[in-house]
Amino acid sequence: MDHSSLSTKQSIMFSHKFAQLTKALWKSVEKDWQQWIKPYHLNINEHQILWIAYHLSGASVSDVAKFGVMHVSTAFNFSKKLEERNLLTFSKNADDKRNTYIELTSEGDQLLLETLEAYETNTYDVYNGALPIKELYGKFPDFTELITIIRHIYGEDFMEIFEETLKTFDKEFTEENGTLIPVKQDAPRT
Amino acid sequence: MDHSSLSTKQSIMFSHKFAQLTKALWKSVEKDWQQWIKPYHLNINEHQILWIAYHLSGASVSDVAKFGVMHVSTAFNFSKKLEERNLLTFSKNADDKRNTYIELTSEGDQLLLETLEAYETNTYDVYNGALPIKELYGKFPDFTELITIIRHIYGEDFMEIFEETLKTFDKEFTEENGTLIPVKQDAPRT
Repeated sequence: MDHSSLSTKQSIMFSHKFAQLTKALWKSVEKDWQQWIKPYHLNINEHQILWIAYHLSGASVSDVAKFGVMHVSTAFNFSKKLEERNLLTFSKNADDKRNTYIELTSEGDQLLLETLEAYETNTYDVYNGALPIKELYGKFPDFTELITIIRHIYGEDFMEIFEETLKTFDKEFTEENGTLIPVKQDAPRT
Repeated sequence: MDHSSLSTKQSIMFSHKFAQLTKALWKSVEKDWQQWIKPYHLNINEHQILWIAYHLSGASVSDVAKFGVMHVSTAFNFSKKLEERNLLTFSKNADDKRNTYIELTSEGDQLLLETLEAYETNTYDVYNGALPIKELYGKFPDFTELITIIRHIYGEDFMEIFEETLKTFDKEFTEENGTLIPVKQDAPRT
């Protein structure tokens, strides 16, 4: 592709606009997310680690870092804090000694489920902001352009895991009287 | 609007997906923005303050906080640091003694312009990610759904200033050989 005809000005106007939009949205999401999980003495990174480890059986610390968009050292340090609270355990894989793997304990599973049970439809302001779009078009936006941009930056496997954890979530949870509960399973989740 | 038929599960799936998308995008933008302005010993908050004060003549600290999506104390503390570097001055308005206003000094103007002159089309990875969309549709995405959500959260005046500063930027800057330069003006900008 020849982008030489595209100007610096065009680039800065697009990027600055996009920077402002994503900052405004992330700051709103961040505030609401923190508020939601505060009663469980978790921060966003810790909650993400629990969430990813719950849905991605046998996740390594570097998987968690990648799919949680955090530094490996952040993923490791917060995993360590969760381990101290007996919410997860670390392990090494016999086939792959370089990576450290994490697995939720039953207390970790339980704590994640408690946060999901406490979730209310108005937890996130971005959801309320998206409702009129749902009313108008009959469905929530797909954000295909955002996904195209993210695929470029983070690669195909990031998007695959992203879609996969959403599908798994859809299958693993049901709802009773507005409260989210896990689908009962006889066999272990893995 | 009656949203009672919308489920908790629908809400959490939308919000979690959206949270992941905005985190991934913002973290990429944040990294590239920091990298760009690092040679000028500025952080993102400071650069935003310079930028907003440049385009919004007679901005108050609370305007800067609002349109920069930062806490008022953050806006104040970083403005203070910029004042110590002689990049801006504080003032009170005779008609409105409660607010503190900031104005860039010529050094502040100059530093912002230097950062813009140093901007290159590949400064932001999100821009490169959006280029294939531009090739396909002949224009960059408008992100109308994101703007709808932001309007709900931050209000109409946030969006007005957002559009206004982009328009001002478009008028005030031109480009020569791929470098961004301000349009020469005989009269002062205000």
